[in-house]
Amino acid sequence: MTAPKKDFTHLDQKTGNPTMVDVGEKTATKRVATATCDVVLGNEILCLLLDETDILTKKGPVFQTAIIAGTMAAKKTSDLIPLCHPLGLEKITLDINPSGPDTVTIRCTTSLTGKTGVEMEALTGASVAALTIYDMCKGFSHDIVIKEIKLIEKTGGKSDFTRE
Amino acid sequence: MTAPKKDFTHLDQKTGNPTMVDVGEKTATKRVATATCDVVLGNEILCLLLDETDILTKKGPVFQTAIIAGTMAAKKTSDLIPLCHPLGLEKITLDINPSGPDTVTIRCTTSLTGKTGVEMEALTGASVAALTIYDMCKGFSHDIVIKEIKLIEKTGGKSDFTRE
Amino acid sequence: MTAPKKDFTHLDQKTGNPTMVDVGEKTATKRVATATCDVVLGNEILCLLLDETDILTKKGPVFQTAIIAGTMAAKKTSDLIPLCHPLGLEKITLDINPSGPDTVTIRCTTSLTGKTGVEMEALTGASVAALTIYDMCKGFSHDIVIKEIKLIEKTGGKSDFTRE
Amino acid sequence: MTAPKKDFTHLDQKTGNPTMVDVGEKTATKRVATATCDVVLGNEILCLLLDETDILTKKGPVFQTAIIAGTMAAKKTSDLIPLCHPLGLEKITLDINPSGPDTVTIRCTTSLTGKTGVEMEALTGASVAALTIYDMCKGFSHDIVIKEIKLIEKTGGKSDFTRE
Amino acid sequence: MTAPKKDFTHLDQKTGNPTMVDVGEKTATKRVATATCDVVLGNEILCLLLDETDILTKKGPVFQTAIIAGTMAAKKTSDLIPLCHPLGLEKITLDINPSGPDTVTIRCTTSLTGKTGVEMEALTGASVAALTIYDMCKGFSHDIVIKEIKLIEKTGGKSDFTRE
Amino acid sequence: MTAPKKDFTHLDQKTGNPTMVDVGEKTATKRVATATCDVVLGNEILCLLLDETDILTKKGPVFQTAIIAGTMAAKKTSDLIPLCHPLGLEKITLDINPSGPDTVTIRCTTSLTGKTGVEMEALTGASVAALTIYDMCKGFSHDIVIKEIKLIEKTGGKSDFTRE
Repeated sequence: MTAPKKDFTHLDQKTGNPTMVDVGEKTATKRVATATCDVVLGNEILCLLLDETDILTKKGPVFQTAIIAGTMAAKKTSDLIPLCHPLGLEKITLDINPSGPDTVTIRCTTSLTGKTGVEMEALTGASVAALTIYDMCKGFSHDIVIKEIKLIEKTGGKSDFTRE
Repeated sequence: MTAPKKDFTHLDQKTGNPTMVDVGEKTATKRVATATCDVVLGNEILCLLLDETDILTKKGPVFQTAIIAGTMAAKKTSDLIPLCHPLGLEKITLDINPSGPDTVTIRCTTSLTGKTGVEMEALTGASVAALTIYDMCKGFSHDIVIKEIKLIEKTGGKSDFTRE
Repeated sequence: MTAPKKDFTHLDQKTGNPTMVDVGEKTATKRVATATCDVVLGNEILCLLLDETDILTKKGPVFQTAIIAGTMAAKKTSDLIPLCHPLGLEKITLDINPSGPDTVTIRCTTSLTGKTGVEMEALTGASVAALTIYDMCKGFSHDIVIKEIKLIEKTGGKSDFTRE
Repeated sequence: MTAPKKDFTHLDQKTGNPTMVDVGEKTATKRVATATCDVVLGNEILCLLLDETDILTKKGPVFQTAIIAGTMAAKKTSDLIPLCHPLGLEKITLDINPSGPDTVTIRCTTSLTGKTGVEMEALTGASVAALTIYDMCKGFSHDIVIKEIKLIEKTGGKSDFTRE
Repeated sequence: MTAPKKDFTHLDQKTGNPTMVDVGEKTATKRVATATCDVVLGNEILCLLLDETDILTKKGPVFQTAIIAGTMAAKKTSDLIPLCHPLGLEKITLDINPSGPDTVTIRCTTSLTGKTGVEMEALTGASVAALTIYDMCKGFSHDIVIKEIKLIEKTGGKSDFTRE
Repeated sequence: MTAPKKDFTHLDQKTGNPTMVDVGEKTATKRVATATCDVVLGNEILCLLLDETDILTKKGPVFQTAIIAGTMAAKKTSDLIPLCHPLGLEKITLDINPSGPDTVTIRCTTSLTGKTGVEMEALTGASVAALTIYDMCKGFSHDIVIKEIKLIEKTGGKSDFTRE
């Protein structure tokens, strides 16, 4: 981790109260962010989801509902996170794939050309997609755990980031 | 994990399409759910948050903003999770406490007297509080990770649950 | 059509201004409403949607996205229609089926136990599902037309209704 | 109808899942769209609405409520239609006029300078205005039908459209 | 003013953090609240609004837009005021009348049968109606002032209130 | 007050119906607006809020909750005020300070580079912050009054404004 700077960007320096960052003087650039998140469903639920002996595969509607929910939530980020700026996202992508014997991994990428980044949008999209999968599978078990919501990469801002 | 039942509750048995559960015939009971979630901030950010040598402690506004965001998000659960029922929550509690040298733990409890449980509301409240802390601390580092969003306990429904 | 009663229920008798109906004195009963709506896509788009020679059938994701959108919109009815009461819907069902060589029909059923009916919720759910199908197919043609949004049946209120 | 192109723009080519179109590389141009929609009220309700022997004409508050509802709904389009981009509409116009002995026609025009069109916004504005008229007149009859929601014209995108 | 009780109801006694009141154990009763608010428009704008020599009176559309906005805002109170409970309002009434040579007064009454009062809903409805009138008249002057947003009466809770 | 111009900007000249202003041809400029609002709490509540003999000062969480609520409401302005354009605010600032023995004053400043001003956003942010303070203090008294919601200054539009 890089050494913390002195001040919280979202607290007013004089009063200490929460405050939005002023992005008015920033330059509009192409900004892209990718976040991921794991949902540990357990092996049995994952098998049920992926079972192809069934005529009606379950993966389709469960994953697609989560993709829709994550897409709509990414658009609502500034409604959910108090100090986020309202943004005109130009693209939201969500992928959901099995990533282990009991886990699916959600990857959400967001982008726009604007004055501020889309990191919170990618994280919010991935989180709400995960909560949606939880909701649709909780009839089987309440042991499901959502893990490792994190930024993978962001480009276009003051400093790029790639998780090692 | 208990053995999965045969069918997904949120998929229509005939068409396989996503569908809400019908709670019309359920009995209104007092329902309570508690979810938790960890935010791994790293030791340096956590120290900055908790530093009491400062006249203006940072913990107050950061945690309070997260508590407000989580409370408001819990109320919006049915707007975010496609197959959740709209509910008249009667109480939402959020606590945020340090739980290790680099981590804070968020605990969200939701309750009402109604026909369906409030598990998704507790999980959504905890998740959005975590995303808010991330947002307010991301000026220091993008290595912050949100971990272990999970149900701790729920009571009042068909079957109670307590995480061991 | 039955002979119109004298007054508009949603206009104040004295001032003529728009106003909500007071449902405070009504009895909570089980109320169910069903609405339908046709989307005339044209034969070519319908064939593409239903084509089963493709490995990835298009019907699944298009119809499921519309079902999710219609379900979420039904929950937002009182946010969209100014004089509708906020309701705690207990069940929303959406089905989408081909109903002719160039048409799909959407059927939306909503229900709850409450003091006022769910007719507008069923109509709103069907309408937004139709707009979503339009959105996903408009890359092929702008000739798509949404037709015949109408109530099919409602029960549980002062007077039941069944379309002949 | 023009011959369908090969692929659904809103389905990912590889996975078949629903996905937003990436408008990041498009050019911002002036875009305008007009949609219409008919509400078949029946002759008796229409006469009541237009009756000018009354001191308080009913047309005013009913149509104005519908105009406000349609305007607000057009602004919410990306909240309702899952794969629509959030847009900063610069103008929304709604007109409502009698168009036959039993029918009113709603016309909604939306515009902005942006990277993507406003067709869904015009259609959504017209649809919700129609649902609002239905709501305010349903005390007289449930036979009201909303018909022919369709695009009339759009300009400013890759290809213009005018309904013949 | 009655002597303040010891503690803030919306702050947690132990942590001092903001928190919702728990209404779970309260009894559902009929609750009604009325709030008012003045908009000082100035005499010239008020005359323009009320001018009846015009064929198209301006008062109608301006006041009706404000009534619709106030009604919709009252329904959104729990979305706006962080610690308010989501409520199923059963009736919202808004009246707007001239109350002096330069002023209009907005009166908003809200009601339901439920476990908690509707005071914030009445105040929110009146406030947003006032802001809407401001918006529609600000083309004439920016000197408009919104004054005296206050509760007039509430009944049905632990203690009734009537402003003297 | 300057002499009123002839027409209401938000009413259609032909039909008299409410309508949005078309900002499509306006130039994007830096626009800033500041609004204020007083909350008359009474001396006793104000003393409780400011009391520093308490270990847990009450001012912090009450004012911070109001600041968060006002910030989020400013972002929702176009959702609340029917004829407001959706805007991508670049900065929202809220300050709350005691301004007399029984009163606090809220000041809200909003800004962006865009085609239309942010006056309604500043007024809405101040109003909802005031309603939030009311909500958190109403346990002590219902005599609290919100006063003097008004524009203080706006720059960047066709004509600047500074309140004398």
